[in-house]
Amino acid sequence: MNASTPKRLRVDLLPQPGLAYPDVVLVVDVIRATTTAAAFLEAGASAIYVSAGLEQARAFKDHDVVIAGEEGGLTPAGFDYGNSPREALEAPVTGKTVVMATTNGTRAAHLAAATAKHVLLASLYNAHAAARLANDLATEEVAILCAGAGGRVGLDDTYTAGVLAEFIQLMGSYDLQDGTLIALATRRTYPDPLEPLSLSLAAKSLQRVGLEADVPFCARIAASPAVPVLEGRVGEALIFRRYQPQRAGAASSEG
Amino acid sequence: MNASTPKRLRVDLLPQPGLAYPDVVLVVDVIRATTTAAAFLEAGASAIYVSAGLEQARAFKDHDVVIAGEEGGLTPAGFDYGNSPREALEAPVTGKTVVMATTNGTRAAHLAAATAKHVLLASLYNAHAAARLANDLATEEVAILCAGAGGRVGLDDTYTAGVLAEFIQLMGSYDLQDGTLIALATRRTYPDPLEPLSLSLAAKSLQRVGLEADVPFCARIAASPAVPVLEGRVGEALIFRRYQPQRAGAASSEG
Repeated sequence: MNASTPKRLRVDLLPQPGLAYPDVVLVVDVIRATTTAAAFLEAGASAIYVSAGLEQARAFKDHDVVIAGEEGGLTPAGFDYGNSPREALEAPVTGKTVVMATTNGTRAAHLAAATAKHVLLASLYNAHAAARLANDLATEEVAILCAGAGGRVGLDDTYTAGVLAEFIQLMGSYDLQDGTLIALATRRTYPDPLEPLSLSLAAKSLQRVGLEADVPFCARIAASPAVPVLEGRVGEALIFRRYQPQRAGAASSEG
Repeated sequence: MNASTPKRLRVDLLPQPGLAYPDVVLVVDVIRATTTAAAFLEAGASAIYVSAGLEQARAFKDHDVVIAGEEGGLTPAGFDYGNSPREALEAPVTGKTVVMATTNGTRAAHLAAATAKHVLLASLYNAHAAARLANDLATEEVAILCAGAGGRVGLDDTYTAGVLAEFIQLMGSYDLQDGTLIALATRRTYPDPLEPLSLSLAAKSLQRVGLEADVPFCARIAASPAVPVLEGRVGEALIFRRYQPQRAGAASSEG
């Protein structure tokens, strides 16, 4: 909010254990965890718990709790749902808590939560709302943290970071860092979001388990205003709820 | 050399401790370590020792050994040279060993050397020769490993990886991975190499210590055929020498 020093717009293409986040972080795992989290909120879930692992997620199971996640792309034993945003959007989860356990997205969310003031789950699906909220909340920095896959950068996440960065730049004055310029270059190289998403290793992994129909869903830009925002913790799990600008009255303008 | 399976062209935008390299690695720290290493060979140095640290480098000092490196961009106490490619190209080092100690480039070279069959130091300065040699040596994979800076991706190194990837693609059939597509997108976004190099954090750090005149040197593409290739170790240091295609006869065609 200091007019003399522009905020920083930072993109980290991979989670790095040593990195600290002073302000706002948008966590991106576009294929599929952060897309699916927004889709569960869109379907009416009251909260998303991002659990540290499959075993920890199973321990949450209860009558008003459903468990969703993946192991090698597929629904783990004993889970109610996989990690498919198509399935999430149709799931009867109104008023329920959804516990999610995935691999790369979970790791990135926990890294961000260790230091950041605000942690949001972002994807192409909620890109405009997530970018707007990040710009509104930030006082010094918006960081976009890409989950990647197994320690390697993802074309899908980097592209999504570029889309988010482009929206954020439209809303305020930001200093751009190296990772941001790389993400913007990637975004500008591919006019159609389905192309970089389909070329990514994450999409190829889905093809191998017959779930490639999730990719076009993940490629939809700004179809949802539902932004999961970190509100607290229960044990090791991070609690995300849908952002409500003013709890009374103005909420209807969000969706 | 198996015609039925194309080789992989991989770009890692940051060194990651867990990653393994089965075949050829091009290590890139374009501002400035891998540019400077090639410039020292161009100036006639017989070998480059990439040392693990400043103290280890000082221990090598001898009558036919010079020590070069940086600490916060500047020449460390007791060193003969800094990490400037302009200075390296003019240095009277014919027949001498140059021991180099830098930060990010050194770490990346040691990571690559831990597993790879062939390790080359690459930059824009020797981009064409390095790409050609990597393509010639590879049987299954060419990996381009960007040094980055302090755990963050560098626009300068990512752009250079894109230039190298573009040359390598012209020479053979390769499967492209996510990092490669990101590097190629970055390369295609900036027609003039001086622009991404000047925008990078590495260049801004040089400006702060008055060494920004090194940036245009680092932005020269394919000005040198000198490619440092890992030949062995002495203690913790990696020994690089100029690649000689056939020791007798054909060497003159290289330079």
